[in-house]
Amino acid sequence: MIANQDFPISEPPLPEPECRSLFLETPPVSPLAEADLEQIHLASMRVLEEIGMDFLEPRARKFMADAGAEVDGERVRLPRDLVAKAIATAPERFRMYAQSGAYCLEFGGNAVNFGSIASTPYCCDLKGGRRPGTMADMSNFVRLLDSLPEVRLICGYPVEPQDAPPETRHLDAIRAFLTLSDMPCHAYSLGETRIYDALEMIKRARGIGDAQFAARPSVFSIVNTSSPLRLDKPMAEGLMAMARAGQPVGVTPFTLSGAMSPITLAGALVQQNAEALAVIALVQLVNPGAPVLYGGFTSNVDMRSGSPAFGTPEYARAALVGGQLARRYKLPYRSSNVNASNAVDAQAAYESMTSLWAAMLAHGNLIMHGAGWLEGGLTSSFEKVVLDAEMYRNLEATLTPTAYETWRPDPQAIAQLTAATEALTETSFLPLEEAYEHWRPEPTVERASREAQRLIAEHGPRVLDADRLEALDAFIARRREEGGAEAA
Amino acid sequence: MIANQDFPISEPPLPEPECRSLFLETPPVSPLAEADLEQIHLASMRVLEEIGMDFLEPRARKFMADAGAEVDGERVRLPRDLVAKAIATAPERFRMYAQSGAYCLEFGGNAVNFGSIASTPYCCDLKGGRRPGTMADMSNFVRLLDSLPEVRLICGYPVEPQDAPPETRHLDAIRAFLTLSDMPCHAYSLGETRIYDALEMIKRARGIGDAQFAARPSVFSIVNTSSPLRLDKPMAEGLMAMARAGQPVGVTPFTLSGAMSPITLAGALVQQNAEALAVIALVQLVNPGAPVLYGGFTSNVDMRSGSPAFGTPEYARAALVGGQLARRYKLPYRSSNVNASNAVDAQAAYESMTSLWAAMLAHGNLIMHGAGWLEGGLTSSFEKVVLDAEMYRNLEATLTPTAYETWRPDPQAIAQLTAATEALTETSFLPLEEAYEHWRPEPTVERASREAQRLIAEHGPRVLDADRLEALDAFIARRREEGGAEAA
Repeated sequence: MIANQDFPISEPPLPEPECRSLFLETPPVSPLAEADLEQIHLASMRVLEEIGMDFLEPRARKFMADAGAEVDGERVRLPRDLVAKAIATAPERFRMYAQSGAYCLEFGGNAVNFGSIASTPYCCDLKGGRRPGTMADMSNFVRLLDSLPEVRLICGYPVEPQDAPPETRHLDAIRAFLTLSDMPCHAYSLGETRIYDALEMIKRARGIGDAQFAARPSVFSIVNTSSPLRLDKPMAEGLMAMARAGQPVGVTPFTLSGAMSPITLAGALVQQNAEALAVIALVQLVNPGAPVLYGGFTSNVDMRSGSPAFGTPEYARAALVGGQLARRYKLPYRSSNVNASNAVDAQAAYESMTSLWAAMLAHGNLIMHGAGWLEGGLTSSFEKVVLDAEMYRNLEATLTPTAYETWRPDPQAIAQLTAATEALTETSFLPLEEAYEHWRPEPTVERASREAQRLIAEHGPRVLDADRLEALDAFIARRREEGGAEAA
Repeated sequence: MIANQDFPISEPPLPEPECRSLFLETPPVSPLAEADLEQIHLASMRVLEEIGMDFLEPRARKFMADAGAEVDGERVRLPRDLVAKAIATAPERFRMYAQSGAYCLEFGGNAVNFGSIASTPYCCDLKGGRRPGTMADMSNFVRLLDSLPEVRLICGYPVEPQDAPPETRHLDAIRAFLTLSDMPCHAYSLGETRIYDALEMIKRARGIGDAQFAARPSVFSIVNTSSPLRLDKPMAEGLMAMARAGQPVGVTPFTLSGAMSPITLAGALVQQNAEALAVIALVQLVNPGAPVLYGGFTSNVDMRSGSPAFGTPEYARAALVGGQLARRYKLPYRSSNVNASNAVDAQAAYESMTSLWAAMLAHGNLIMHGAGWLEGGLTSSFEKVVLDAEMYRNLEATLTPTAYETWRPDPQAIAQLTAATEALTETSFLPLEEAYEHWRPEPTVERASREAQRLIAEHGPRVLDADRLEALDAFIARRREEGGAEAA
């Protein structure tokens, strides 16, 4: 239940639409013993009490001071009771809704939602190579992602549209989301203006008011800490605006073991937990009951180059332990599908499968960067979007029941091998590979390329009610005239 | 405990050497509910009682008739009590030993052992392309496999040495295993002569007698049924010779859903279970207590081409349920690392990671075809050996405890980010990939190729005691003179 302070819910409840999340039947994999998990919890509580965390936004510090935190300049020290009490008001499960309201997604428990890549400066495909992202590229990514039923959310700009001016980029990008796809989407917490703009645009496109929007959220924002132990002003502003509107906030420390975090995985996880819980506490102090996700993105630095490594065992283990921590606090969990490869090759696939299996086994309720991630997050690949959807589908089908759970086997069929009337699931949607003798080298990425081009070409615009489209475009025109948002 | 009929153990027990198996800390993943697993069990018992299975070797039928089975020509119908009583004598855990005795491997429970590819007609590398296997290729595979600590066993000919005459090929191949590697190895159950030859060669190379060999096995044999519901004569002969010598037998039905098995996964698993248990019962009737593995290799046919598909969700789910079945019968479990790709590309990697994760999560005690498999088992790839070892190492490190399980985190280190004295695990042994700007396309397979060439070039022969080598070669010379083994 979302107890929203600004917009009390008074309308009669709407009928609940179909839920399109995947619900896993296999229990989560929990690598740490309870006692060891408790050590991470206790150490992170000591960090928040004894060291504290910098909150650069004064209103955020005020919320925390009012709740009993010790504020010293920008530094805020949080007693463990304050943290426990605040995070206890966060819902264990919440739902997000399609912009049309036609379906919903659930976050929490055993529900999994596979999302898009986000926030890369570059994009690539076989035909055009690697290049800075444009609005045209971003729109094509949205078309492709929207065509794949595996992808359940747009988790940010699938590539940064660098040709759009920074002060109005958010208006153009959110418009593209709302006119090309019905999926729940993401707005960036780069100051409060961009969030307010996004919220207004979405309400207009949906034709709803604040109360219904709060009751049926359809946009979320990822808030990253500036590790170690700092929350910047633009992120805090976005967080507060989202929380007040009842829209979900995913809190994700980027704790890179060996860079902005201790070199041991234990230390990095303690830091992740301290930062995540402090910021989740802030969300709950702003609006008790507002939907929130516990995010884990802990990885390690490659000690030979100093670059972030992704899809490593350290990453996968941290993702699994992150799930355990989220379950301990009864919070929905966000994980990712990542790799450090430069190309859509074997390395990209096996690093992705390391992180994707871990995200699924951890019961990652939101799998950010699910489809398209390449090169440590610097590049979005059109071909990788298709292959990631295929990999996700493989795991979805592996970890959910098939016909034989309820089917009673007929031993006579085994002798005769005839009574085979049931259709076998087709598990691959890529065009079939030729036998070796007729085959040209390295076809997987080529097959994915053909599939991506076909899906983009066949994708039509989303039919938005004319009044709503007009209201949306009028708002955009006004905001563009006003100069858009300040630099973040 | 191995109660060996032919070679009673009377020597004093040897000190137990270091065990090099991986012991997983995470519990296995069991996708089926107990009641559904029981349905598979009950249906497979009905298959063995009502339909029965063909045993083409008369001595095998005699063992079963003596135990109470109903024999009708080649068809043997097995009462469920006979099966239950026979498989109950199989050990829940057993060990295999290095040829030198320097270390051992454990099979059963949470122990995992990653093995080599086996039995492919072709091999390939970047330099030489795809070609029929030769003894030179096979020996280079053994050198490469032996150089990688991840690989714990040689699971058959890493490529079929087609230039060696069929009647003496086993002599040449086993000699290559014994002089290039200390690892436990595999002998093919293609009639009893080849097995007797292998056993004699290994005893000579180890300088031990029958009793110690039975107490400390160092060679195993995979026995495949000719699905549906048939065990051929050469396989049964090999099985009986191995069981009497106390060497492990892995029983693996190749139940391909939609080809030699029902099109539903439930039906294929019922058939797998019936065939596996009937043949395991035979092993136990020949020598109660002989070490044995329950093997699962159930997959599906690609309905568009009729080819076997590998690394699919059907395959992965069958591998997980296979582990559940093996645990139900308290038998060690054999699984595999497979894919259907023609090249060492993204498809090869993600299909391998589908099957490899499933094998690990199923607690596959023996991971056959762990390193090198390509093209649905038609080709062994030198580059894939290196990449599979890397993938396995990723999962090994993900699923076993790291330092932080026992490490007490120091919160002060988080504020200062200084007390970072512990070395970070290096997780990748491939030469590091360049940043995108300095990088040439598709390097993963090239890096693997350089690594494979380096390891093969640097690999030296195994230093075998001169007397033992002489005894081994004298045996080979005599058997060669005698014309080797009959056609199988």
